[in-house]
Amino acid sequence: MPRILIFLERGRFEEMLKIRPDCIPCTLSSALRMARRASSDPEQHKQVVQIMTQRLAHISWNESPFELAFTIQEAVFKVTGIRDPYSEVKKESNRDALELYPKMKKLISNSKNPLETAAKLAAAGNSIDFGVYSEVDLDSVIVKAERLEFAIKDFDEFEKRVKGAEKLLYFLDNAGEIVFDKLLIETMLEFRGSRFREITLVPKEEPLLNDATIADVQEVGLNKLPSVVIKPIGSGRKRAPYPRSREVSDWIKEHDLVIFKGQGNLELFLDEPDTFFILVAKCPIIAEVLGIPRESLVLRYSPPSKT
Amino acid sequence: MPRILIFLERGRFEEMLKIRPDCIPCTLSSALRMARRASSDPEQHKQVVQIMTQRLAHISWNESPFELAFTIQEAVFKVTGIRDPYSEVKKESNRDALELYPKMKKLISNSKNPLETAAKLAAAGNSIDFGVYSEVDLDSVIVKAERLEFAIKDFDEFEKRVKGAEKLLYFLDNAGEIVFDKLLIETMLEFRGSRFREITLVPKEEPLLNDATIADVQEVGLNKLPSVVIKPIGSGRKRAPYPRSREVSDWIKEHDLVIFKGQGNLELFLDEPDTFFILVAKCPIIAEVLGIPRESLVLRYSPPSKT
Repeated sequence: MPRILIFLERGRFEEMLKIRPDCIPCTLSSALRMARRASSDPEQHKQVVQIMTQRLAHISWNESPFELAFTIQEAVFKVTGIRDPYSEVKKESNRDALELYPKMKKLISNSKNPLETAAKLAAAGNSIDFGVYSEVDLDSVIVKAERLEFAIKDFDEFEKRVKGAEKLLYFLDNAGEIVFDKLLIETMLEFRGSRFREITLVPKEEPLLNDATIADVQEVGLNKLPSVVIKPIGSGRKRAPYPRSREVSDWIKEHDLVIFKGQGNLELFLDEPDTFFILVAKCPIIAEVLGIPRESLVLRYSPPSKT
Repeated sequence: MPRILIFLERGRFEEMLKIRPDCIPCTLSSALRMARRASSDPEQHKQVVQIMTQRLAHISWNESPFELAFTIQEAVFKVTGIRDPYSEVKKESNRDALELYPKMKKLISNSKNPLETAAKLAAAGNSIDFGVYSEVDLDSVIVKAERLEFAIKDFDEFEKRVKGAEKLLYFLDNAGEIVFDKLLIETMLEFRGSRFREITLVPKEEPLLNDATIADVQEVGLNKLPSVVIKPIGSGRKRAPYPRSREVSDWIKEHDLVIFKGQGNLELFLDEPDTFFILVAKCPIIAEVLGIPRESLVLRYSPPSKT
């Protein structure tokens, strides 16, 4: 029962989601993948790796791995002059996922439990991650959702909260994946039979790997859901707040249904009580922390704090 | 025809086997694996990664990836005080491979072409590499040899040279794997029906990942082959010469059958004319350079230089 374990050991888990030694080679591989997207010049690939290695040589083990994504983005921009190397990939992901939208819509409505199917698809959609993979096959994402069960499945609580909540706060992860999130929110609305008073979507302020930005949210029409508000997060160095800021903490408190998509959000918010996490456990450390096999689907509820 | 390509583009290949950006994350992963073998203390794992990251931040792209192995060894020793973290693993590998020796001996002698089977087993044995893998299943190594064909197979030339050569120079790679090398040399002797005038074996002077040292050579009885001489190579900072030294270059010239086992030796000696390479292409770069899929078996002949 990983869920009980997680509940009992919350303090330990918070500790575990800081940067680990394994994050260093993984970050360098991720930087190299991005450098190759931004430029075909092997000299520039070397430069990106060199800059990243120099920065990582002085990293603090107390930061979140999330910080490393900004470092990659900066290094690739500095060397190649490209601000958004995944720009094309993101557009393609959105387009490809939108093409599958009717098929997935049908899959959901024809299933025994549409809300569960939509949640599973949303979790499987978290595989659309060019920070981790070089290529993603969307059809296999759907097959994954059809074949696999959730390894952590706090569905009863989820169903209850979807039914009763007034204000939904939804932290998005990757472009393409957000079409799956759109389907989930639409299915939530059908399941409730009523609108939310407010749906707050949280994309990234600026390009960060292949994470969804406001442009992506608009591209897939997520902004057309009823009562939508869009509040981006970012590095905290521009306009949008850093995820672990007082401001974002206040957003979370003001909403009665909070969903975090993906690994980055899990790393940042695992200690956040009374919230949901939907993801694929792609990183071996996250899989270990959650006590599940890699590539498992997760719908996890963090219970309210005991105080 | 990858062979022709390799022949024509030798100059380019030499360039390709210097350190590449991909070597940096791979070296860090390898260092972390070794740190975990040497110590169970997560703080020490962090320290090893930190030291390695700091060193890699100032690496020269003109070095051979072979140099990186020494750097790993030093960093793990500095932090943990353990000079030979794979000591136990190497002993186990030798013991396990020796246990399979009778089975492999029979496999070879019952096969249509014992020399080819022995060469294929020797290539597959190159999978016993704890610098690359966390675990190795010896039985699956044998299955690999039985099922797979060589992706590069310069066997005719090999057979001819085994038949006619007087002095064999054999660069060893990993512990455990050397039992497969022993079988190959024994099969070579049976195939010839006569001794070599000299068999020079080249292990490592000091512990380097799970590479075979003199102790391993003795453990598996390789020193009992007829007319054996053992000449270790090393970092060049102790007694034994650096692989790319004048001294080792002279050894190569003095022998008429030269075999390099494994990736490290391929990286160092790919431009060496009139020599053989036997390995599994574990590293994606080496696979790319050779123009073959990863995990392929290789028996490759470098033709004599044209001058």
